[in-house]
Amino acid sequence: MERLRWQVAAVATLGLALALEALPSVLHWLRAGRRQQRRRPPRREVLFFPSQVTCTEALLQAPGEGPSGPPAGCLCSLPHGESSLSRLLRALLAARASLELCLFAFSSPQLGRAVQLLHQRGVRVRVITDCDYMALNGSQIGLLRKAGIQVRHDQDLGYMHHKFAIVDKKVLITGSLNWTTQAIQNNRENVLIMEDEEYVRLFLEEFERIWEEFNPTKYTFFPQKKQSH
Amino acid sequence: MERLRWQVAAVATLGLALALEALPSVLHWLRAGRRQQRRRPPRREVLFFPSQVTCTEALLQAPGEGPSGPPAGCLCSLPHGESSLSRLLRALLAARASLELCLFAFSSPQLGRAVQLLHQRGVRVRVITDCDYMALNGSQIGLLRKAGIQVRHDQDLGYMHHKFAIVDKKVLITGSLNWTTQAIQNNRENVLIMEDEEYVRLFLEEFERIWEEFNPTKYTFFPQKKQSH
Repeated sequence: MERLRWQVAAVATLGLALALEALPSVLHWLRAGRRQQRRRPPRREVLFFPSQVTCTEALLQAPGEGPSGPPAGCLCSLPHGESSLSRLLRALLAARASLELCLFAFSSPQLGRAVQLLHQRGVRVRVITDCDYMALNGSQIGLLRKAGIQVRHDQDLGYMHHKFAIVDKKVLITGSLNWTTQAIQNNRENVLIMEDEEYVRLFLEEFERIWEEFNPTKYTFFPQKKQSH
Repeated sequence: MERLRWQVAAVATLGLALALEALPSVLHWLRAGRRQQRRRPPRREVLFFPSQVTCTEALLQAPGEGPSGPPAGCLCSLPHGESSLSRLLRALLAARASLELCLFAFSSPQLGRAVQLLHQRGVRVRVITDCDYMALNGSQIGLLRKAGIQVRHDQDLGYMHHKFAIVDKKVLITGSLNWTTQAIQNNRENVLIMEDEEYVRLFLEEFERIWEEFNPTKYTFFPQKKQSH
């Protein structure tokens, strides 16, 4: 009888010990499962160009521009599937709070409309560009400025040759692609879309460095009037 | 006495249970420690340009070129520290088996020497470039061809505008930088150095696609002589 009680007690202790030991793992597993549901894997994508020419109207329709209700399917003759350009537009249009653009050349009308849409939606858009290309025929820079978007440019001999965007300080978009229709439709180009804290931080620091350096108060770009004395 | 024996047995069982439970964690911890020692973290670096002008002679000295033994310190007046260019050179010169280059413009003498050095060391170098820029004054492409390095180029209107390199099919080097002295010393540019299986695979596929498409057997680049009948 005493021995049975002894055995029961031993088994019960063992069971309790195992249960207590396992508890943190079970809790961790449950928590990890919930985290997994909340956190999708970080975005990592590569877009190669030239992009197939597709219709991007559905993506670029401003609220109030089309009929009320969901925008009707566009009836134009272009294909309506996904393309590298539509993916790039989607990545930009995901912005909710901020968009930093650091672009050598910017003349694509679709990308220009996307940036203006974001500005209309209240996203804080800032643009850095190259002085040699901003005034060329077809450049979007004048239109962005007219819409009230802040633009700063270099004023020296070297090119501001970056081609990157930062969406909501979370996603870096960077590569070889200048934002021109020529490049999108005809060139071999690459664009990386990376949700990556470290790369975003480094590129954001580069953006802020250049933004400050290109502060218009420092411009000597337009020749100063000679002082009369 | 019986009660004491009961207590000792219970404590012993608990201890054994805890020890058994902890064993896998301890083993895992030991194994992870060993793994950590073997595997350094994958390389992730961003280089921003313009690069400080530094002396890169020590990096580029071919065996046999200098005096026997370790190369003597260069006595030129340039600074001899690290720069974005020296880091880029180092990343390239780490190649042991293969180097794929896909470059819009290539005229930097230092980068040209690095590529020739790798070719001399038996690294399999393949170059894809743009036909509009390869014959310009100062281009390295002719020198590379002369040294026996395989080069292929586009022959259409769009630019081959990529600027990437793949080292030993393990490290991707890509960004906005054309390999010209003008860009290295004067432009705002970025270059990512990424040891990343997925990105390397995608860029290598792009390289092989273009390499095959630009196969010289398919060139119609040089106007064909008209048939006499």
